[in-house]
Amino acid sequence: MDTIERLTACLNRLPGVGRRSAERMAVKLARDRTGLLADLIRVLQDTSENLCCCSRCGSITSVNDEPCKLCTGHDRDESILCVVEDPNDIMLIERSGAYRGRYHALMGRISPSRGEGPSSLRIDSLLERIEKEKFKEIILALSTDVEGDSTASYIIELLKDKQVKISRLASGLPAGSGIVYSDPLTLSRAIKWRTPQKP
Amino acid sequence: MDTIERLTACLNRLPGVGRRSAERMAVKLARDRTGLLADLIRVLQDTSENLCCCSRCGSITSVNDEPCKLCTGHDRDESILCVVEDPNDIMLIERSGAYRGRYHALMGRISPSRGEGPSSLRIDSLLERIEKEKFKEIILALSTDVEGDSTASYIIELLKDKQVKISRLASGLPAGSGIVYSDPLTLSRAIKWRTPQKP
Repeated sequence: MDTIERLTACLNRLPGVGRRSAERMAVKLARDRTGLLADLIRVLQDTSENLCCCSRCGSITSVNDEPCKLCTGHDRDESILCVVEDPNDIMLIERSGAYRGRYHALMGRISPSRGEGPSSLRIDSLLERIEKEKFKEIILALSTDVEGDSTASYIIELLKDKQVKISRLASGLPAGSGIVYSDPLTLSRAIKWRTPQKP
Repeated sequence: MDTIERLTACLNRLPGVGRRSAERMAVKLARDRTGLLADLIRVLQDTSENLCCCSRCGSITSVNDEPCKLCTGHDRDESILCVVEDPNDIMLIERSGAYRGRYHALMGRISPSRGEGPSSLRIDSLLERIEKEKFKEIILALSTDVEGDSTASYIIELLKDKQVKISRLASGLPAGSGIVYSDPLTLSRAIKWRTPQKP
């Protein structure tokens, strides 16, 4: 296999990158005159040498900050834990500024179609943390699809005898959107869980 | 800027990769356990050391095969030249198996909105090659949108006094598609340039 084929195959393994896009990227990199190729090599080497997943919450952190600042920061609420599927979700939630507690990334979700069961997720360490860190509330910030729902149900079942509040993210219309853009399921959830405005 | 931010910014410069996708890719690479990160670094280094653009046609080739096999192969028709926007287009046309002539990649197209005029394209070298290599036909395999149309018109105007046949790719319904999936412009072109089936 020649270099451009191998580069395409490699890029094709990135999330959301199909064969055609991978090929476009590969050609762009091969004919690069802007320094992108050199920059990418440099930053990937940095990534390889300096980044890791936090052993506690699973977020991306520097090898010198392990456990990460989100786990050790004293300015954060230690009584609440947000469970997410992927470290990327942690970055997005942090950026929203709406949450200041601890995190736990499952590194996936229950997905029979992709052969991912509970045993491939970080559920044992979640249970250990809940036992040890005495959270008052667990927010399951999981996807609002079938696989996210199964993962949530599975965890809720495991925790049914624990003294801990459990919630999931609200489901409804996205901000800045309208009924005309919503699918029937989203709309029915938005109606069912409508937000009271006036008592 | 920390490593994950720099990686995201770098991936964001790849074609078709938005900010959000770049971030997902960056996290995937940072928490990689499958060897993808190492593979990608290795193949990008290979790309950097071994690939270049053919000085004649612009296609991606090995530094040891320069000018490329498409330019030097004696099994190819030397009387016909296919002008494309991007080296990637050459790979796609080769894969179709429908063309066995020479190529010339412009490395872009006339696009006022992106500040790309004729001078940023490989048009001078195109004119030199047409002068020297005595092609009988030039196929303008350019996009079928406004920018592709302007680029084609510009080249046709430049070549108006030359003894050379010029064609563009057929425009019409994509293979395996139907009227119901086509936009009005495609459909009107498909009708205008309908293919005779019976004399």
